[in-house]
Amino acid sequence: MRDHGGDLDRAKAAFGGTDWIDLSTGINRMPYPVPPLPPDAWRTLPTASDVTALEVAAARAYGTQADVVALAGAQAAIQLVPRLRATGRAAVLSPSYNEHAAALTAQGWQVTQADGLDAMTGADLAVVVNPNNPDGRVWGADTLGELSSRVGLLVVDESFADPTPALSLAPRLHGLGERVVVLRSFGKFYGLAGVRLGFALGGPRTVAQVRALAGPWAVGGPAIAIGTAALADNDWQTAMAAQLAKDSARLQGLLQAAGWGIVGATALFVTVDTGDALAAQARLARAAIWTRVFPYSSGWLRLGLPGTPAEWDRLERALARQPE
Amino acid sequence: MRDHGGDLDRAKAAFGGTDWIDLSTGINRMPYPVPPLPPDAWRTLPTASDVTALEVAAARAYGTQADVVALAGAQAAIQLVPRLRATGRAAVLSPSYNEHAAALTAQGWQVTQADGLDAMTGADLAVVVNPNNPDGRVWGADTLGELSSRVGLLVVDESFADPTPALSLAPRLHGLGERVVVLRSFGKFYGLAGVRLGFALGGPRTVAQVRALAGPWAVGGPAIAIGTAALADNDWQTAMAAQLAKDSARLQGLLQAAGWGIVGATALFVTVDTGDALAAQARLARAAIWTRVFPYSSGWLRLGLPGTPAEWDRLERALARQPE
Repeated sequence: MRDHGGDLDRAKAAFGGTDWIDLSTGINRMPYPVPPLPPDAWRTLPTASDVTALEVAAARAYGTQADVVALAGAQAAIQLVPRLRATGRAAVLSPSYNEHAAALTAQGWQVTQADGLDAMTGADLAVVVNPNNPDGRVWGADTLGELSSRVGLLVVDESFADPTPALSLAPRLHGLGERVVVLRSFGKFYGLAGVRLGFALGGPRTVAQVRALAGPWAVGGPAIAIGTAALADNDWQTAMAAQLAKDSARLQGLLQAAGWGIVGATALFVTVDTGDALAAQARLARAAIWTRVFPYSSGWLRLGLPGTPAEWDRLERALARQPE
Repeated sequence: MRDHGGDLDRAKAAFGGTDWIDLSTGINRMPYPVPPLPPDAWRTLPTASDVTALEVAAARAYGTQADVVALAGAQAAIQLVPRLRATGRAAVLSPSYNEHAAALTAQGWQVTQADGLDAMTGADLAVVVNPNNPDGRVWGADTLGELSSRVGLLVVDESFADPTPALSLAPRLHGLGERVVVLRSFGKFYGLAGVRLGFALGGPRTVAQVRALAGPWAVGGPAIAIGTAALADNDWQTAMAAQLAKDSARLQGLLQAAGWGIVGATALFVTVDTGDALAAQARLARAAIWTRVFPYSSGWLRLGLPGTPAEWDRLERALARQPE
């Protein structure tokens, strides 16, 4: 399996210990409270009206008039993207989430890593993660809309965009026809990655194509019930976005005080340059806090946000301790 | 969306009423009791060891030494099957579950409907549902093993095989190399279709290919927890298989007493020839019992098994009533 955050197996094998705080992902650690599930959610296949209710809730939450299809996670969308156009040349804004290039390459695309939007011109398919993971770079809707006229299909992965809706291309999608598909993750902002829920938004033909490739019943009853409730809960969304913005600033302050420079940040993670990422990761791991290093950087370390006072406290103590 | 069982929306729209008994699928109505879920199941991404534990439990339950990959339902496997070999000529044993031919056709295969195994010789990819849905036809492991030497890739969909393990090719798969892939459904026998869980079993290369196409985290924490528990519960499995066999015989008796001839049956459904399927469906729908008709037969009606004494009682009364 490719290198990922979120797999505590490795941390436990290397460092032992229990009661780990997993900051190796950008999954919110203040999850949406899972509502009581309807009795049939586990037992029966979801009906078409259940799925429609979820997709309507998603369209409202993302502020889009475009078509929406529910999938078993943003990752499920990433697996299908390579099939939306005839195999050709793809450009992926890099560095970024490694699964885009991996899925495209595995499915026959010739993939180039682009260091900026200009380098993507002429690609048959272009992928931009916005805000970008792990460096927090952002691009405005105008810039991405303009890029879409210079590439075959523009894929904008907005997995970390929920706390900053002004960044999202979703409200502008209906003017972009079949040129853009936006991917959304449910699990990160709502802190419920185990639900496996995500969405693809775009023109009717592209979304119908995704729906056909995913097949019927891509999302089960519990995910539909939880997603429909959470996506409609505007009060929770507003309060959580504010809390995460505050917490991200707090985390940035702590990491800077530890002597690490900010590479980039979103409301769901902060990436710092530690000089020696493996040493920094090990130092925090000795306090049973797991973080993320990257194969392409010897210095970068990414941390998700602690979720409780006890978690903040442990992180602060671990950072205050002198390196061994 | 294609015609399916399991979508009560249509029944409610056409006949009104509430408290429907959905016998339009082969999903067991005596579900495995959902165990308490570990606190992190909804919140975190499953670790590699969680997934491995599930796949080991599946291999044991299915009695196979072959490689196993967990997917979000047997349907998810059906969507990926067309990509396991270069697009060519596929043969699907027919009539059968319509999604096989649909997924193959949509993904560029030339599909022929075969009325028997001999007609499949030379196909690049052949699909047999065993036991078959909806006519209950079965093929022995020797027969299917022999067929696998006459086609490119043999796909055996064992979605309804749990109650009759002697039929399964799973225990013989390790002798068949990369020639056969077996699909299993979790939701039908365990009565938990909303969990979205299924498996593909086969040679290491084929299973690795399925795993790569599905991508990471294809199955979430709750599905892993429920599946791992249920697949290891031999006592429940044995008792349920016996109960379903008895109940299927009871249902066959009731339907024959109603004057309908048995087309075929498994331990999870019975298909009868009613002469006029739409009239028979409507007659039961007036008692809020939903059943399945088929576009290719004017007479066939398929019924799943009632799950409680109250459900049996309602079905018996509805069948005893004179047709209007």
